[in-house]
Amino acid sequence: MAIEGKDNPHARPIRLGMVGGGKDAFIGAVHRIASRIDGRYELVAGALSSTPEKALESGRALGLKEDRTYASFADMAKREARLKDGIEAVAIVTPNHVHYPAAREFLKRGIHVICDKPLTSTLADAKKLAKAAEASDAMFFLTHNYTGYPMVRQARELVENGDLGTLRIVQVEYPQDWLTVEQHNKQADWRTDPSRTGLGGSTGDIGTHAYNLACFVTGLAAESLAADLQSFVPGRKVDDNAHVMLRFAGGARGMLWCSQVAPGNENNLKVRVYGDKGGLEWHQENPNYLYFTPFGQPMRVLTRGGAGMSASIGPATRVPPGHPEGYLEGFANLYKEAADAIRAHQDGKPISSLVPGIDAGMAGVRFIDACVRSSAKNAAWVKLDG
Amino acid sequence: MAIEGKDNPHARPIRLGMVGGGKDAFIGAVHRIASRIDGRYELVAGALSSTPEKALESGRALGLKEDRTYASFADMAKREARLKDGIEAVAIVTPNHVHYPAAREFLKRGIHVICDKPLTSTLADAKKLAKAAEASDAMFFLTHNYTGYPMVRQARELVENGDLGTLRIVQVEYPQDWLTVEQHNKQADWRTDPSRTGLGGSTGDIGTHAYNLACFVTGLAAESLAADLQSFVPGRKVDDNAHVMLRFAGGARGMLWCSQVAPGNENNLKVRVYGDKGGLEWHQENPNYLYFTPFGQPMRVLTRGGAGMSASIGPATRVPPGHPEGYLEGFANLYKEAADAIRAHQDGKPISSLVPGIDAGMAGVRFIDACVRSSAKNAAWVKLDG
Amino acid sequence: MAIEGKDNPHARPIRLGMVGGGKDAFIGAVHRIASRIDGRYELVAGALSSTPEKALESGRALGLKEDRTYASFADMAKREARLKDGIEAVAIVTPNHVHYPAAREFLKRGIHVICDKPLTSTLADAKKLAKAAEASDAMFFLTHNYTGYPMVRQARELVENGDLGTLRIVQVEYPQDWLTVEQHNKQADWRTDPSRTGLGGSTGDIGTHAYNLACFVTGLAAESLAADLQSFVPGRKVDDNAHVMLRFAGGARGMLWCSQVAPGNENNLKVRVYGDKGGLEWHQENPNYLYFTPFGQPMRVLTRGGAGMSASIGPATRVPPGHPEGYLEGFANLYKEAADAIRAHQDGKPISSLVPGIDAGMAGVRFIDACVRSSAKNAAWVKLDG
Amino acid sequence: MAIEGKDNPHARPIRLGMVGGGKDAFIGAVHRIASRIDGRYELVAGALSSTPEKALESGRALGLKEDRTYASFADMAKREARLKDGIEAVAIVTPNHVHYPAAREFLKRGIHVICDKPLTSTLADAKKLAKAAEASDAMFFLTHNYTGYPMVRQARELVENGDLGTLRIVQVEYPQDWLTVEQHNKQADWRTDPSRTGLGGSTGDIGTHAYNLACFVTGLAAESLAADLQSFVPGRKVDDNAHVMLRFAGGARGMLWCSQVAPGNENNLKVRVYGDKGGLEWHQENPNYLYFTPFGQPMRVLTRGGAGMSASIGPATRVPPGHPEGYLEGFANLYKEAADAIRAHQDGKPISSLVPGIDAGMAGVRFIDACVRSSAKNAAWVKLDG
Repeated sequence: MAIEGKDNPHARPIRLGMVGGGKDAFIGAVHRIASRIDGRYELVAGALSSTPEKALESGRALGLKEDRTYASFADMAKREARLKDGIEAVAIVTPNHVHYPAAREFLKRGIHVICDKPLTSTLADAKKLAKAAEASDAMFFLTHNYTGYPMVRQARELVENGDLGTLRIVQVEYPQDWLTVEQHNKQADWRTDPSRTGLGGSTGDIGTHAYNLACFVTGLAAESLAADLQSFVPGRKVDDNAHVMLRFAGGARGMLWCSQVAPGNENNLKVRVYGDKGGLEWHQENPNYLYFTPFGQPMRVLTRGGAGMSASIGPATRVPPGHPEGYLEGFANLYKEAADAIRAHQDGKPISSLVPGIDAGMAGVRFIDACVRSSAKNAAWVKLDG
Repeated sequence: MAIEGKDNPHARPIRLGMVGGGKDAFIGAVHRIASRIDGRYELVAGALSSTPEKALESGRALGLKEDRTYASFADMAKREARLKDGIEAVAIVTPNHVHYPAAREFLKRGIHVICDKPLTSTLADAKKLAKAAEASDAMFFLTHNYTGYPMVRQARELVENGDLGTLRIVQVEYPQDWLTVEQHNKQADWRTDPSRTGLGGSTGDIGTHAYNLACFVTGLAAESLAADLQSFVPGRKVDDNAHVMLRFAGGARGMLWCSQVAPGNENNLKVRVYGDKGGLEWHQENPNYLYFTPFGQPMRVLTRGGAGMSASIGPATRVPPGHPEGYLEGFANLYKEAADAIRAHQDGKPISSLVPGIDAGMAGVRFIDACVRSSAKNAAWVKLDG
Repeated sequence: MAIEGKDNPHARPIRLGMVGGGKDAFIGAVHRIASRIDGRYELVAGALSSTPEKALESGRALGLKEDRTYASFADMAKREARLKDGIEAVAIVTPNHVHYPAAREFLKRGIHVICDKPLTSTLADAKKLAKAAEASDAMFFLTHNYTGYPMVRQARELVENGDLGTLRIVQVEYPQDWLTVEQHNKQADWRTDPSRTGLGGSTGDIGTHAYNLACFVTGLAAESLAADLQSFVPGRKVDDNAHVMLRFAGGARGMLWCSQVAPGNENNLKVRVYGDKGGLEWHQENPNYLYFTPFGQPMRVLTRGGAGMSASIGPATRVPPGHPEGYLEGFANLYKEAADAIRAHQDGKPISSLVPGIDAGMAGVRFIDACVRSSAKNAAWVKLDG
Repeated sequence: MAIEGKDNPHARPIRLGMVGGGKDAFIGAVHRIASRIDGRYELVAGALSSTPEKALESGRALGLKEDRTYASFADMAKREARLKDGIEAVAIVTPNHVHYPAAREFLKRGIHVICDKPLTSTLADAKKLAKAAEASDAMFFLTHNYTGYPMVRQARELVENGDLGTLRIVQVEYPQDWLTVEQHNKQADWRTDPSRTGLGGSTGDIGTHAYNLACFVTGLAAESLAADLQSFVPGRKVDDNAHVMLRFAGGARGMLWCSQVAPGNENNLKVRVYGDKGGLEWHQENPNYLYFTPFGQPMRVLTRGGAGMSASIGPATRVPPGHPEGYLEGFANLYKEAADAIRAHQDGKPISSLVPGIDAGMAGVRFIDACVRSSAKNAAWVKLDG
């Protein structure tokens, strides 16, 4: 393992702000841990809650200085942009409908944005955000965190290297069970409220992850889809289960299932890809293994950091094979790579990065939008860019 | 374990004939083993091949008497029906297009039929066979053999007992990889020839198994489906991969994937069912386990013959838990139960049986037909009884 | 799959008798199914119980003729030996202490013996049985049935081919849980009674299987062992758990654990072997897979009948890869191979066979004896041939 | 998930120093990540290498101030103890033989010690270190990091709650394969050099982890053991494989296997415990699951954070069930709990903690010592406190 290398100017901790992520939030704490794991960020400012007292209280709890704890993201963006040691990047970890207005404020002031997924709660917002990102000199990163898992990267390499041959079939699924019955808590409430989560329920919250993962691994994009969405729990206003058929550019076909009402599934994200030369399979819940079968040969079990891994994956692992890495390390890979990209950008030497950005985000929102449109037409095929 | 109990008149071996199953056949040998495992049948006659010499040679190899080795199923049906000790039942293990003409000959002479799946190669034949079966006093059994697995029976019981609550989601899949590239051999040839296999390729050969399994476990039937069929291997005349969305009577929704071109999959049939109270999962390749999760509780691993099994499943197992039973034992359960039904029928005391029959067969052919019709209409929803 | 080939004189069914295996027995029914699966035997005589009425009743249930249902194995041996169409082979499926006296009667009359394990209940009996077998022209087969599993054969081939290099470590275990608490039933009673089961409890019943499996796969024999035996259940007269360290000829070392009191284990037999070039692992409860890792390469999952299997294993499988075979098919392989050997012997053209015989049986009894001797000396090392 | 809570004085980052962990080290980086994950430590000083330039270079890379980068741990202990904002705790991550001399310097100056395992390279050093710890007001923590895994804690709770009944059997194993052939690199070199690693090779490096885990989960200590150690790789001066039988106080018996030469095993640590009421099993390589079987009931799969977990485990998890946590999060739990204990100690309100300390360390060294003594006597039973 390498020393962390903070003497490298690129590795000096980046001053980070956070929008959302106050008390009772879930994903904010995940982002904070992910930012800490490799020591590449220092959290120095926050607009942690839309409730002023909670924002203050949460900032205090996190050890933020009082004058850098803000009651709104707009205030934070304005003031931090003027500070000499203001934040260089901001993590946006709010419910979906706040992603666009928040990101806009920082992007227009040249502050890099690390935003949770999906990109926005509406396609209209997504388009505006895309423009805002394009107009800005700052970078935009979207935490489709499953792309940070080393074995997902390895899967992508196998495809890219042609080890699967011409791709034919993509099977991806993301079942959960936590919304099997009606739930009332902070996490469930906004995720089942169309005004905050957007039109898609399970499709937006986890379907986008599944779709993103399929695209990331295969390098393909869906041209059209046919979706049959359900809201099984009485009174639920957004889908809690979705069956989707996909047609990818180039001829591959796929199926995507996402569900929040499948008892026995926690975060059972799986992706399987088949070509005319081989197949692969990866499971998020035991993520350190990749199952690869060259057609006509026995299945090989690739392990994170073990024999047969591409050298390029090395920097995305921290401990020896057999010592499992998990969700937070995968998430941290995105933060680390975003840090590399930010420092390179500041040096005027931009680098390419695997961290998803606006394009992946736009693809995700188009996916949700297409699912909803298709389902409204009795699961007719619709184009994703329609 | 019980003694085999042949003193019971019901248990006296049944005189069995076979149509198909000569040299180089696969499924014929499976039927013969399945018929022998519990000692309930004695193979005494055969029309084992449509090639006369091969029929003779195969009959000799199997130890059949020469005068009971026939050159055609029609000859066999005629003569056996007249013999005092003629066959009581016949196993039909030919390519699909022969199922109907062969079954008809035996049914009309009151000889019970045990037929491989799918029921027929066309819907027209299926309807005719259904009429022939109705007109006959003989019984008709269809070897959707996966229904014979004890844990599949247990899954069905859990659903029936309400342990899953109201069913919402059915996920079933049957991927294989043996047709990933063009193949030429006895098994591949007829399975990829529409004139023998029927219009459906993977849908007919394995999709029907998957669909049957889903229906058997849930007790549900699909009302409509939307199917996207592919023939990935250049020149292939039938589908080798199918993506299907299902809508069941009563509101449950499903997805079905079958494939013959998914490298790394041998006979990877899996079924998962979710209701508002629980979920279950079963894998054919390790069939002695059933994964059952009551919502809000830890997953329970039920084992064949182990704790928590329904008493009714007992007779379908032969060895203690932890000693795996497999494909042949599941298949043998159908043969054993057909034997029970035949003897009861002969005694004039008909019994109910879980062995699939004409109805399941008709449902399977309707499934294939609907898949082909839907796919031809760009995966539009079609009714199964359309 | 091949046709069963009964026209081949070698394949003509062998006339089989059975000693033990009456009502309420377990292993007798297993032997009968195993003998039927490939159609190579016909059960024609039996001394099925030491209780005359039960013997008669069981024979009738099995469809045996009354005059070939015997009240004692001695009667059966005498009369069958004189019959023109008397039995050619006998299956001995009694409690352990009857193995020797029964086998002796048949061996001395030239009737081939297929005997359940362990060979005998005492070392003295084992030596006498070995002499009896040597003195007889008939063959003796011992159903260490786990050696019949195709993937166990494949494991043996990998070792034999040098794919593991020089062997260093053998880890074998066979935990069960059915005797966790005091039990009273036919199966438990004789297995916990030293006068019937022998001095070893778990060591005799399952430890011998584990030891045999380790030797079969590796081709090694233990020179010495150190055993710590326990009888955890109060009042139990034989061991119900055993911890054993092994030293093999040639320098490999091993550990063996067998237990009847390990809750959560049904028949959880596993073997792992490691050499300087690779390692392998096999699990009885999911027996169609073999995990093989050449050192420095990813693990390969070999599947029964799949890619990478040795051609020699082919005849030991019946259905395509992905269709699981289980305990009964493995058992049936021994019966089929014994049939081949018997027919070849009758033709005066003896063939070699992988079915365990007297030597493996003697090794098993020496293993039990050594375990008991070592444990009595506080787990001191003892020689197996001591 | 809770906010990190740094406003709580207990949660204010602890000033941390590090001994060892410079360039090319492995475990130092692990400790640093573990210390960062929950934001409870700030690394401010280091004696990172015994080579002065490397120490300086490593310190610079880590962003340490030059005047707090030391050429020796002795210098660091002396100066930091005098600084107003000197380190409050030190992480010792050197090869084993340095643990004692380094720990002594900090303990005698009241600086808390977080030390990697095993405690020391010799029993003599261990005894001296125990005295030094007792004499000091500072606390001593030993990173037997596997005890930090939530499901290991859950296993311990099940035992403690009596869910397994009276314990009978403990099976623990820790196989690796990285030393299957001779290796020369920084990690391998000191681990196979008795002057740095101590007398035990695999027993010291991983056997102690296995033994510690068994004791942690069961609450038992071994009274005596019999060990058969091997050095399979020619020329290796310490054991690379060990077979150990254990006798625990109270009557439970165990087996322990550790190996560095078992191809196909990375860090395949597993523990299984059986009592008269139930059994459990845990695997380090997929650590988010615990398999628990109450005798006579189906196995239950407990998941980290899922249904059926003890409330007390909650604080040791960070993300929802189904999102895997791994090695680093388990390690971080020890750091977090050490931080809680240090702050409480500073407040004069000591709290109990599950982090292993001197006693566990002493038990580990006694375990190694007993293994070596027993093996030298041909695996005779020896007492651990002998």
